[in-house]
Parts: sequence; C-alpha cells; structure tokens
Amino acid sequence: MPEPQLAIFAVQGVGEVRPGDDLAALLADALGGPDSCGLRDGDVLVVTSKVVAKAEGRLAELRHDDVAAKLELVAAESTRVLRARGDLRITETRHGFVCANAGVDLSNVDDGYAVLLPVDPDRSARRLRADLRRRLGVDVAVVVSDTFGRAWRRGVADVAIGCAGVAAVVDLRGTPDAMGRVLEATEVCVADELASAADLVMGKATGVPAVVVRGADPSWRREGSVADEIIRPPGEDLFR
Amino acid sequence: MPEPQLAIFAVQGVGEVRPGDDLAALLADALGGPDSCGLRDGDVLVVTSKVVAKAEGRLAELRHDDVAAKLELVAAESTRVLRARGDLRITETRHGFVCANAGVDLSNVDDGYAVLLPVDPDRSARRLRADLRRRLGVDVAVVVSDTFGRAWRRGVADVAIGCAGVAAVVDLRGTPDAMGRVLEATEVCVADELASAADLVMGKATGVPAVVVRGADPSWRREGSVADEIIRPPGEDLFR
Repeated sequence: MPEPQLAIFAVQGVGEVRPGDDLAALLADALGGPDSCGLRDGDVLVVTSKVVAKAEGRLAELRHDDVAAKLELVAAESTRVLRARGDLRITETRHGFVCANAGVDLSNVDDGYAVLLPVDPDRSARRLRADLRRRLGVDVAVVVSDTFGRAWRRGVADVAIGCAGVAAVVDLRGTPDAMGRVLEATEVCVADELASAADLVMGKATGVPAVVVRGADPSWRREGSVADEIIRPPGEDLFR
Repeated sequence: MPEPQLAIFAVQGVGEVRPGDDLAALLADALGGPDSCGLRDGDVLVVTSKVVAKAEGRLAELRHDDVAAKLELVAAESTRVLRARGDLRITETRHGFVCANAGVDLSNVDDGYAVLLPVDPDRSARRLRADLRRRLGVDVAVVVSDTFGRAWRRGVADVAIGCAGVAAVVDLRGTPDAMGRVLEATEVCVADELASAADLVMGKATGVPAVVVRGADPSWRREGSVADEIIRPPGEDLFR
C-alpha cells in the first residue's frame, strides 16, 4: 500500500472549550496522546471557528427561543443585509463575509448564549500558530473554519474564515497545464478546500473541533490571510 | 502512528483521454498497478468532469482566440445569463448549475476544441460506478467534480456536478449535537466537500484526473444525485 498524498486525522479529546481557555494548550495536550497523530512541520491544523470564538470569549447572552433578540444580535454583527426570509438573514459581517445570520450560532452552546465569529480570524490563526510553535516546536499552518451556505447550491460546506502559515488562494496563472500551455486564470482557494476536507472528518456532533491535514503542498506555505485573499471587494463582486 | 480518518490517493498514469475511450478501463488499469492504492468497497472515486466529458465526446470545435465563437458556445450551453462582464458570463446551465461560461473549458484541451460539461453528470457517475463494479468487483461511490467560482469569495474551488453511490447532501437534522440537543438545520453538502478535498491532491496541471478518497462515512452511502439534492430550485434561491 502506498502512502496517501493527503491524510486527515481527527484531534480527539479536546473537550468543552470555555472563555479564557488556552486553546493551544488544549490542542497540544490532545495531540500529545499515544493514539494521536501528533503535529509535524508542514501539517495544517484546521480548527473550528466555534472553539476559537469560545476560547476568545466571543459569546453573547441569548435565550435560544427569543427570535427578536436573535435578529437584533444578527443586525449588530452585520454591516449590511443582502436578503431576508422569515427569521433568516443573509448578511455581510464586519469582516466582509457573506453568510447566514452573520455567523451567530446556537448549536453546541449552552442555552442562554450564542457563539459569534472571532473578531479577527486571521489574527486568531496567527496566534494559535505561534502558540503551537512555542509549545511544540513545530512549524504548522492553521486554518480557522466555519460552516457557510452558498448561493445556488443546497447544503452547507466548511470554508476558511482565517488562516496563517498557508496561502488562502494559490495563483496558478503562469503555470503550464498538462498540455504545456500557460493557464489563463486559475486562482484556487486552497484554504476553503482544506476547510471542506477537514469537515469530512469533523462531522457535526462528534466533538471533534480540530483535524490535522498532512500532505498539503509545500508550495502553499506562506503567511496567508483570508481577509486579504478571499474576501471579494464589493466593487469586484457581481453578486452584491 | 494511528491510521488517518480520511486518506486521499492520486490515481496516476491515466494519460490523455479521447472521445470514445472506456474511462472505467483506463481507471481500472491505472488503479491496478503495483504502486496504486487500488479500489476497495466503500472508497469514493472523484473524477474530473473534464475526463468524463472527453470520454463521452463532449467536445466542441473552437479556436481558442475566437472570442465571438466562444460567447456563442457559452450561450448555446446556457439557459440564462445572470451576469456579464467583458467576455465573462455567469450563466445557468441546462443542468441548473450557476457557473462561469457555462462550464465551457479551454484548458488542458487541444486548440481547436473546447470541453463542455457532461450532458447528465449523475448518469455519468452511475455508469462509471457500474463499469468499475463489473470490472473490479468493488462497490465504490463516484463523484464527478468541476471547478467553479463562487459569489462573494475569491478563488475557485472544486464542487460535485454528479455523484453515484454517495449522498450529495447529508441531512443532520434530528441528529443530536455534542450538547445532546437536536440540531435545527444542518444539511451538509458532502459531495462538494469530497470534490474540494480531492482537488487538494489533483492540482491543476499535473495530469491527475482522479483520486481515491478512503474513509468516507459509511452512513453517506446511498444512490445520491447532485441534480436532485444540490441544485437549488430558482424559487427557493435568494440569489437568482
């Protein structure tokens, strides 16, 4: 059996994350167990926005059955409402993300609270990356993922809302295709593809808030930023 | 070292695919080599739309520098134009996909030709799945992938345009979350996530037209259909 080009490992045993927790310490502990894949230079650690936000204290008080309060919270987290249907709002967040309900999330959180998006998910990723390097002596990349709906396609999929140590978008322009000609315009959003791949392992209810992706292309390693590379400025966007 | 939850293997050595080729035979040969991961029951084979379309003869004559002819071809492949900018058209295809230039593709194809989308990618996936079962005696799933742009986010990502033997969308409603409560609405588009994961291994120019994803959740196994499960009917869509 050959080695796979890409291997994805669940990070088990992180447990519930609470405001003020040291997320790097929790992850390092979980990754240090005998049954763990560990962390190696070049790995990509994909971690859910939810545990990042919980550790950073990005919780708002909210009774889950209080629809009016939820709408108010969504409005406070949004700079613009693109569409509304029932109590669903498709909004633009302060970060520039377009998603349902500004990312305000009531699942896997105690009633009485909602989880918000991290204030600056690229910064969260950079900090976690630096903390893991300090603790474990490894140079890994970090992707902060969240679950977004999409226009035109049913179902949600995980995307990157922050990254560090890995390109968000890889520009293949100037790379020859298999026929030896130069490709016109192929900018691949590898950060979103890493987040989607990770979600295949995370599931939604199994308490796996992070995965290790081993085998990512070394040429993707660089500082990286979702804010700078993925968010499409409104002037360039055909759908805002 | 534990086994990864998910492993992705490139299918090497398929070579150029031509109209009339037996794609299952080409893939079975490539998967039969001593350095190959082979195919096992429960694997998901992700194969690019391009090689499926080439095998099915979905090529149109087109000089790559003939912009007017390209626009004509895109129009012929579309039922509706959503947006236009320069010679870029965001259109709805006959299948109901919303994508750039109706999927008309000039990369990795000889000048003088364009590759179109398969007529019925779910059917293509079903046929390939049945052919592989007949040849190799394995029960695998097949996802036909293509590279689409997205609203609001820069960069392209691979999505599923056809599938067989795997759910396109997994409905987690009714599944308890990690706090033991029932999730409200989480329909995860695992077919798109599988396609995105596969693209991390395929690259764009390395001649890898298929990958094997090993470790997909067995509960996702069923007939599956991108057309029925992913394409959002216009009446339900907030962005058409």
